[in-house]
Amino acid sequence: MQDKITSRVDYDSILDAYKRIQGHVHKTPVLTSTTINQMSGAKVFFKCENLQRTGSFKVRGAHNAVLSLSETDAKHGVVTHSSGNHAAALCLAARTRGIPAYIVMPLGSPETKIESVKRLGGIITFCEPTLVAREAEAESIRIRTQATLVHPYNDLRVIAGQGTAALELLEMHPDLDVIIAPVGGGGLFSGTVVAARGKNKLIRLIGAEPLGASDAFESLKYGKLVPSLSPKTIADGLRASLGQIAFDILRSNPIEIVTQSEQEIVAAMKSIFEILKLVIEPSAAVGVASLLNPELKLHGKKVGVILCGGNVDMDKLPW
Amino acid sequence: MQDKITSRVDYDSILDAYKRIQGHVHKTPVLTSTTINQMSGAKVFFKCENLQRTGSFKVRGAHNAVLSLSETDAKHGVVTHSSGNHAAALCLAARTRGIPAYIVMPLGSPETKIESVKRLGGIITFCEPTLVAREAEAESIRIRTQATLVHPYNDLRVIAGQGTAALELLEMHPDLDVIIAPVGGGGLFSGTVVAARGKNKLIRLIGAEPLGASDAFESLKYGKLVPSLSPKTIADGLRASLGQIAFDILRSNPIEIVTQSEQEIVAAMKSIFEILKLVIEPSAAVGVASLLNPELKLHGKKVGVILCGGNVDMDKLPW
Repeated sequence: MQDKITSRVDYDSILDAYKRIQGHVHKTPVLTSTTINQMSGAKVFFKCENLQRTGSFKVRGAHNAVLSLSETDAKHGVVTHSSGNHAAALCLAARTRGIPAYIVMPLGSPETKIESVKRLGGIITFCEPTLVAREAEAESIRIRTQATLVHPYNDLRVIAGQGTAALELLEMHPDLDVIIAPVGGGGLFSGTVVAARGKNKLIRLIGAEPLGASDAFESLKYGKLVPSLSPKTIADGLRASLGQIAFDILRSNPIEIVTQSEQEIVAAMKSIFEILKLVIEPSAAVGVASLLNPELKLHGKKVGVILCGGNVDMDKLPW
Repeated sequence: MQDKITSRVDYDSILDAYKRIQGHVHKTPVLTSTTINQMSGAKVFFKCENLQRTGSFKVRGAHNAVLSLSETDAKHGVVTHSSGNHAAALCLAARTRGIPAYIVMPLGSPETKIESVKRLGGIITFCEPTLVAREAEAESIRIRTQATLVHPYNDLRVIAGQGTAALELLEMHPDLDVIIAPVGGGGLFSGTVVAARGKNKLIRLIGAEPLGASDAFESLKYGKLVPSLSPKTIADGLRASLGQIAFDILRSNPIEIVTQSEQEIVAAMKSIFEILKLVIEPSAAVGVASLLNPELKLHGKKVGVILCGGNVDMDKLPW
């Protein structure tokens, strides 16, 4: 049962999350590059969540969720279905609290991700690689163990946690004109929107989405959730469809969604390796690609870009 | 002519250098990783000079040299011979002061490095790819233009500047037991030795060298400079032979030199990409490889590792 304070995501819930996760997650560095400023014409501040624990911002939301649980609920553990960054993040958060993390992973998940979850003490159940099977298996574990479901993005505590990345960025650079964050399930971007609006009502907020998985763009255009049925993008972290909570936040705030092609995503990813000397995953590159998108008219602006993660197979770099 | 203060590299000259280069170079972040701590058994602090301007620590020494020049000397500019990180660093430092940087580059230098020097306003002269030709060409330019030679490593001002990386690291983590830095020409490691001894007489200092270019190891063993005649290593930044000034510093201090194989260097490089999410060049990986060297007995120690640079061709990663 959710207590009153988490019945919606507001600025205060992000401030609360920030206090709660202190000491459990890194305060990631913000990097700048003269070369990228010259390329984009903007003054760019990269929030390096690729350097976050487990290699992505997901530990923010996972820790906020796990640390919010009552003692009674916590002792039964947490459960999620994810083959990606949220699974590792939830395992780490659960370990912090000494409680079990049940992870439902689709058969065929990459070996490195399975290893990562195992290393962090996750209790893995494999299932067929369909959303229906994943949800059914997680629900069955939830009933059997009384563990609390921590959804990767459609969860108030998770979204509040993800918003703390933008909060940190704005504490260091309060005069940003624009923040760009990638959009998949929408946890990071909707948290960013609430955090940024709470700090500065005038800040421009841009969600960056692959053209091959542009369900957030479509959903906002049609005013209803339009799921991504067969997403085609290298940005594996952004293949999920926008969640209901994120959708409600995005449609009630003045935001923009921009879409980028696969070619632009790969070129941006390589540029960040070459120029910033950072390993980022394709999902993080989507926001970087937007920097060079002339339609956004970022010239002369101070722009924050959230580099969401750095988990990528070094034997399969896409260039 | 050199003034008295730069007749040797001592702790004060490093403190002076640090004041001089403030605002011109980044204070680079120090990163940690639970996974790498587990792998090595040590508590490791990575000083990220790969995130430094121009992608390497070389801007520290170059700025110290250029900003030390008198107005009269400065107006004639600076000259060096380098196909690597020092060339770009010197161009940036010269641009800061609005003076010309003459760069002698061997024919066949990588196109990306030529482009980088050009972008930073360097005035390039190409020469035959031999040390004799490089030195002769630089000397000819020096005489013609009255520019000051800023050697990549055998220069007191350069070494003092390079020592500021360790100074910053020890300001953040004064209780380190060990510092590891790579050794090529020896500018970085000798500067590190002077800085660290000035802060803490008990700190253990380890220079990491490729087995295929182990001239520092040989030189200290035989008590005289033993040049690396045909270095065979992927660590292009460490192919230079130890300079006289660095040699004098190293042999008058209790230090260790450790050598690592090419296989160890490549594996360490890939691990840093995968785990720390950082792009490092092979030269930086040599020090990382030492972390896993059981002969060094680093278990339980607090170890600083200077990641010297991140300039590597993304189309030619060595795995």
